[in-house]
Amino acid sequence: MSPQTQQSPIIVLDSGLGGLTVVRALRAALPNERIVYFGDTARLPYGSKTAATVATFVRQIIAHLSPLGPKHVVIACNTATALALPEVRKEFPHLAISGVIEPGARAAAEAAGAKHRPRIGVIATEATVNSKAYERAIHRRRSHARLLLRPAPLLVPIIEEGRTAADPLVRLALRQYLQPLIDRGLDVLVLGCTHYPILKEEIKAIVGDSVRVIDSAEQCADDVARRLAERGLLSPAADTDSDDAGSLQCFVTDDPDRFARLGSRFLGMPMEVPTLVSPDDLYTTSGTAPVVRVAG
Amino acid sequence: MSPQTQQSPIIVLDSGLGGLTVVRALRAALPNERIVYFGDTARLPYGSKTAATVATFVRQIIAHLSPLGPKHVVIACNTATALALPEVRKEFPHLAISGVIEPGARAAAEAAGAKHRPRIGVIATEATVNSKAYERAIHRRRSHARLLLRPAPLLVPIIEEGRTAADPLVRLALRQYLQPLIDRGLDVLVLGCTHYPILKEEIKAIVGDSVRVIDSAEQCADDVARRLAERGLLSPAADTDSDDAGSLQCFVTDDPDRFARLGSRFLGMPMEVPTLVSPDDLYTTSGTAPVVRVAG
Repeated sequence: MSPQTQQSPIIVLDSGLGGLTVVRALRAALPNERIVYFGDTARLPYGSKTAATVATFVRQIIAHLSPLGPKHVVIACNTATALALPEVRKEFPHLAISGVIEPGARAAAEAAGAKHRPRIGVIATEATVNSKAYERAIHRRRSHARLLLRPAPLLVPIIEEGRTAADPLVRLALRQYLQPLIDRGLDVLVLGCTHYPILKEEIKAIVGDSVRVIDSAEQCADDVARRLAERGLLSPAADTDSDDAGSLQCFVTDDPDRFARLGSRFLGMPMEVPTLVSPDDLYTTSGTAPVVRVAG
Repeated sequence: MSPQTQQSPIIVLDSGLGGLTVVRALRAALPNERIVYFGDTARLPYGSKTAATVATFVRQIIAHLSPLGPKHVVIACNTATALALPEVRKEFPHLAISGVIEPGARAAAEAAGAKHRPRIGVIATEATVNSKAYERAIHRRRSHARLLLRPAPLLVPIIEEGRTAADPLVRLALRQYLQPLIDRGLDVLVLGCTHYPILKEEIKAIVGDSVRVIDSAEQCADDVARRLAERGLLSPAADTDSDDAGSLQCFVTDDPDRFARLGSRFLGMPMEVPTLVSPDDLYTTSGTAPVVRVAG
């Protein structure tokens, strides 16, 4: 295991494309970091699967990438955070690992302001809602908050199909999922899936100005920056003439071309075609050999 | 390898629930058969994944189940048929393996009647459309047919969410996918995914009485019955007092409870909770030991 330094990479992992919204926020906040992204596109989505299965997938990915000696591992997927974070933290005690739920819950609790019993809504995948991870994380901070959780399983496939807010089907789906929350009164709405920031403006328009919308991807990036700063592991500002400024390298378990085509919308900029890792390799990783080679 | 007899099971495999529409049709046509169903729910859906990945998954499932000595293996998934059938037929030459595309294409070619240049539409997953398997299978029979293929990626998650034709979002999605085909004139429409028969009546209502709608699940079941009859391997009519009549046993790679809850809609009758097979086991099957124990 190489020692973790300011130059060590940050690993960001997700079932597919959604975690790129976290990368986008990370790159805006920390432009000098080397980021290694892993999208498990052969086995996505995670949102309709069980804790045991998702925890196995996440464990395999971290074991596969840990030879890179990352200074931080970000589980940039609400479902994987809800179902696997406590387990992989125990299993990889030498790694700093964080997720998207605690930062989102913290921001939601703060956004609720002085109200004694604020109404906090969360839209997320079926698995994230069923895990009750948001209830626990928000109630720890605001025990009197009234939580309104709503699975919104169509939003990920709608976004992955490339549909935009101009599409009447997208507006209808958002209205169907959000109206029951709006009808019960809402002070704060958490976007509890890293895909959803793609539709943030439309969601804001539907819930109205009186509702604070929390983007768990942005909150997660701020949290990573704070954790690295506390440990003195932020990458120093790069010499603008050097090649050592921040970088992004992506790995996927299926269809790199599709990932690059759709990914630029999530990343907010064009992206290179990622490197393919066979899912077979995830079942054979010893956890010691550097099976992934990462550029500069 | 046990010899294949009339009493040997029929294996039906799919990425998840959709193949149960084939089981439903099979049980209607062949009520005395022992059917073993395998739903790869840990890795579904297949419809947005590449040929290499889907072929690996299908190969693993067949290797895992081949110790049962099946008299027939049905790939009850259009995507898996399109991407993996030729490969697994080569890899398992001792097994009789069939899929859903040839039967659907044959029925479509026949339904087009005497028209010189019939317009045949196909709705399917992205992967099935991209594979061009339906074009090839239909053009082999009707070289002058004009094919209109349309990926309809939202229909599977819409159906898996439990939405019905009464839901305005379902009607809007069907209208969006079908209207461009209707506008170009349509003689026949193939439901090129085993999930879609769940919405068959609504689809028929949208395309109108002049369009013949082909259900690839029903066609597949008829094809299996014909193949078994040709080989003299149909199970004999059971003694009505005995326990040896047809049976269905299901295996899934994730969340058996969810599968049973949603599956009854596909099967058209209540179903038992299936047995869980860990995806890990699919990577370690030797292909010789009977790793799956089947009742009856």
